[in-house]
Amino acid sequence: MKVGIIGPIWQSIPPQGYGGTELVVYNLVNGLADKGHDVTLFGAKSSKVKARVFPTVERPLRDDNVEWTNVAYNLYHITEAFDRAGDFDILHMHLNKSQDYFALPLAKYSKTPVIFTIHFQLPNRNTQKDRYQVLMKYKDFAYTSISDSQRNNFPLNFVSTVYNALDVSLFPFNKEPEDYFVWLGKINPRKGTKEAILAAKKAGVVLKVIGAVDPGVPEMLSYYQNEVKPLIDGKQIQWIGEVGIGQKADLLGRAKAFLNPIQWEEPYGLVMVEAQVCGTPVISFARGAAPELIKDGLTGYLVENVDQMVEKMGQINNIDRRACRENVEDRFSIPAMIDGYEKSYNKAIMAFKKQ
Amino acid sequence: MKVGIIGPIWQSIPPQGYGGTELVVYNLVNGLADKGHDVTLFGAKSSKVKARVFPTVERPLRDDNVEWTNVAYNLYHITEAFDRAGDFDILHMHLNKSQDYFALPLAKYSKTPVIFTIHFQLPNRNTQKDRYQVLMKYKDFAYTSISDSQRNNFPLNFVSTVYNALDVSLFPFNKEPEDYFVWLGKINPRKGTKEAILAAKKAGVVLKVIGAVDPGVPEMLSYYQNEVKPLIDGKQIQWIGEVGIGQKADLLGRAKAFLNPIQWEEPYGLVMVEAQVCGTPVISFARGAAPELIKDGLTGYLVENVDQMVEKMGQINNIDRRACRENVEDRFSIPAMIDGYEKSYNKAIMAFKKQ
Repeated sequence: MKVGIIGPIWQSIPPQGYGGTELVVYNLVNGLADKGHDVTLFGAKSSKVKARVFPTVERPLRDDNVEWTNVAYNLYHITEAFDRAGDFDILHMHLNKSQDYFALPLAKYSKTPVIFTIHFQLPNRNTQKDRYQVLMKYKDFAYTSISDSQRNNFPLNFVSTVYNALDVSLFPFNKEPEDYFVWLGKINPRKGTKEAILAAKKAGVVLKVIGAVDPGVPEMLSYYQNEVKPLIDGKQIQWIGEVGIGQKADLLGRAKAFLNPIQWEEPYGLVMVEAQVCGTPVISFARGAAPELIKDGLTGYLVENVDQMVEKMGQINNIDRRACRENVEDRFSIPAMIDGYEKSYNKAIMAFKKQ
Repeated sequence: MKVGIIGPIWQSIPPQGYGGTELVVYNLVNGLADKGHDVTLFGAKSSKVKARVFPTVERPLRDDNVEWTNVAYNLYHITEAFDRAGDFDILHMHLNKSQDYFALPLAKYSKTPVIFTIHFQLPNRNTQKDRYQVLMKYKDFAYTSISDSQRNNFPLNFVSTVYNALDVSLFPFNKEPEDYFVWLGKINPRKGTKEAILAAKKAGVVLKVIGAVDPGVPEMLSYYQNEVKPLIDGKQIQWIGEVGIGQKADLLGRAKAFLNPIQWEEPYGLVMVEAQVCGTPVISFARGAAPELIKDGLTGYLVENVDQMVEKMGQINNIDRRACRENVEDRFSIPAMIDGYEKSYNKAIMAFKKQ
């Protein structure tokens, strides 16, 4: 199949630093190419994938400190791809920022089927009316969600859910954990950094906090300064800054469990998958995609509050760490994701032909 | 002719406060309707014009403090108009902000001719590459400029220059000025507030500074505080804040001349026209559109620096104030603008048919 993938242009593919969508696009492009598809990635010239790169920007925008609100680079990027729609059996557009919405009206005129993957939380009808009404206008296009919970009854034509994958080979399995728990992520009240610490204190266990503080976002900096930092004592609650993927896999894999007391309906949550692939169960608040990513009682526990989290921390040895690994191999590996997108492409192409 | 006008949505048409493009769109819609054209304005629901309003936003964005960088409202607005292109003989899109560039790729698919009026300074090839490359991609569409100087050798397909008009009837003619000069505008180093004051001081004349300071722009506030305010003594250099249109016409009309020592290639400069319509000559630095708006030696003077400005201030009584008024009646009145756009529409329609 001839597939044109329209990814983000803020970073190269793969990303140099943290970049969730960029990493998914990287694994998608390579995975499709590995299966023999003829793939073109529209993106930054410096992207390195196992497929053709059609460069739409000379340099990733982040490298030039382009303002986050910039419109024209993205517009150029998207139009360059749609101008070449005729070269493909399908165009796959990744919607990641509001500037990406511009692909929607163009798809109306495309003679090639287009499929959209939504990477963000869907806009609220009342408080985000601007984006809501644009999506509603184009609700009959073919969409994929990254979890079922992400859909949140939003009446888009979702052809399937395809979970974000990771490369299982990059994460060694660890059968024998050490005596600590772990929290990992960008420091953010939504991600429950503080609640994870409170759970560890209540349970009387060691917690390693592997966190990055975004200095560009004042709310995050003040949350870290006022709510998180005072709870870190360096003994029971240990601060570990940003780490590379190797160290991340090591720290996750040696933990008894990953604590995930999220405070919002997170549409995915790759770190829950990263923990499980190392064999580390996840105890998560039952919000967002957590009930889909974790098999309750088998690969971790779903809880409602900090007290329940503490209770389940005491039962963590009941979880078979091998089952955690297998959950990821079966459902969140690159082959699983490629299979999901291939099926979605076929559905979108069939629907397009029927029009 | 059936004309669809796509204007800005940040304010109603006409604007409640200052809004250059909004005012031009207002006069255009009413002027076309007065001549019997079937006009539809795509814009905020609260717009009040002599034509049909097709509402694309419930309330002007500025009323809801929508972020200036918002993308989705404008996208919805523009797509609603292009979805209805078939109802018109021509669509007239006013390009005012980078979010308006979205209209360009849509025009590619339009079965109705589209004409674009550029209201901003054209992007620099090296420092504004993002916008430059988008415009270049669509350079063969039909464009109008608001002055010849605005074009700046940018290789777009300009079908004509149509000067921004004003409603002559709102500005009484004043044959007998009082003994002062005037500067009027938003306080901005580019507009030469300081240089106007220095010229008045050097010439030993009274200057009334009719200025608005934008508190949301720190550079403007500090320019005002550090460069302008210290020069204001309340006697020779008099500060007069923002004024309504009646008071503006009065203050301009009673002045000996309007001083316009602009520091950039301003693509238009409506205040130069507003002064002349009152009978008040303009002494301007010969930059941007000034040489087109002023007839040198007849309706004012074009100069290169403050010293030359001072020299010409001494010769201002040589200017026939009636000639200033007539310059505007002939070239910058609403009928002149309507005539210009009618001709432009016909050119765009002819070119479209030949494709």
